[in-house]
Amino acid sequence: MKEFIIKANKAVTNGEINLKDLPGSSGRLDLICRCVNSAFFLSHDLRRDTIFYSVNYGNPNPPVALKFIGDELKRLSPDERSIAMFIQKALSKDASEIWKESTSGIYYSNHEFKEIILEKKNSGKKIFYLHLNGKPLENFDFKNESDVVFILGDHIGLSKEDEEFLEEIGAEQISLSPLELHADHCIILVHNVLDRLK
Amino acid sequence: MKEFIIKANKAVTNGEINLKDLPGSSGRLDLICRCVNSAFFLSHDLRRDTIFYSVNYGNPNPPVALKFIGDELKRLSPDERSIAMFIQKALSKDASEIWKESTSGIYYSNHEFKEIILEKKNSGKKIFYLHLNGKPLENFDFKNESDVVFILGDHIGLSKEDEEFLEEIGAEQISLSPLELHADHCIILVHNVLDRLK
Repeated sequence: MKEFIIKANKAVTNGEINLKDLPGSSGRLDLICRCVNSAFFLSHDLRRDTIFYSVNYGNPNPPVALKFIGDELKRLSPDERSIAMFIQKALSKDASEIWKESTSGIYYSNHEFKEIILEKKNSGKKIFYLHLNGKPLENFDFKNESDVVFILGDHIGLSKEDEEFLEEIGAEQISLSPLELHADHCIILVHNVLDRLK
Repeated sequence: MKEFIIKANKAVTNGEINLKDLPGSSGRLDLICRCVNSAFFLSHDLRRDTIFYSVNYGNPNPPVALKFIGDELKRLSPDERSIAMFIQKALSKDASEIWKESTSGIYYSNHEFKEIILEKKNSGKKIFYLHLNGKPLENFDFKNESDVVFILGDHIGLSKEDEEFLEEIGAEQISLSPLELHADHCIILVHNVLDRLK
């Protein structure tokens, strides 16, 4: 299983989303939609072995965590607008401590970013933090890793506190490129490395 | 210089685009918008060394070729809708044999897909065709290639005639992944390979 967790610092936490202006009205929800595309879409197929989380910290009710389970997704199209409409449905409901399903394969809760990561760590999964200054991806051997979790930042990035937390729990910093890339592009690169190991 | 040329078999060739339904109304123009995103967007920067062409063969006036020049682009945002609005502007004008500028860095003409590729070939550029059954990317040495052109198919792919043409002009078939990927995801992977050579 491959899991991706992004901290979306400004992404909206209710359903008041203007679909005509995703970048401005909803705290860069366009980026999150593209991350969903990158996480799941193959040509004429979906990646069933992937889970994607967006933990939104924008107004008015932070945090709201969204979870997309590849094996359960239905009727999702790859374009930003239709993904945003599914997200809007999930964000229109009241998030609580319990993960609830909004539409097929899409869940919501009020779990914190660190809480979700810690749960993965405690269940024995290997945590990687994608960062420009990490070790080059080629230096890692993923062949023996069956359950991997990749942590991503948005356009603002993670806080110093988040980074200290990741260091504490032993997350390895991985660099995918000498250039600073958008999170959705990073997901494509991670998938490709793992695809080519198969 | 890196150039990408996609044949968009069904993409619309006038400005009648429903921005609320890019996949359905405009012949998968959503994919072309994501290709523009992949071709140019870095985190807080644009790739100035890249040119992207979409050659649209949808109704009502095929072909219309769109050319995006990274070094000239202005005010472009990474979301599909805003890219679609720039494309709509270019497609609203009458395309002719002469490339004309629609908005900063975005040009249109009625050039054919093969015509554009042949022009690149004749100016000494190396042509690569991205295909599932090509040789693995790792087998190519790009270090000595300064001007490279990558040919992409959309969800329908290239015709047998197009593929024969590419073979005739000596285009090398490259495979990026053991899985069949969307064109926009392929662009990310090509950029990454070239970025890491620098």
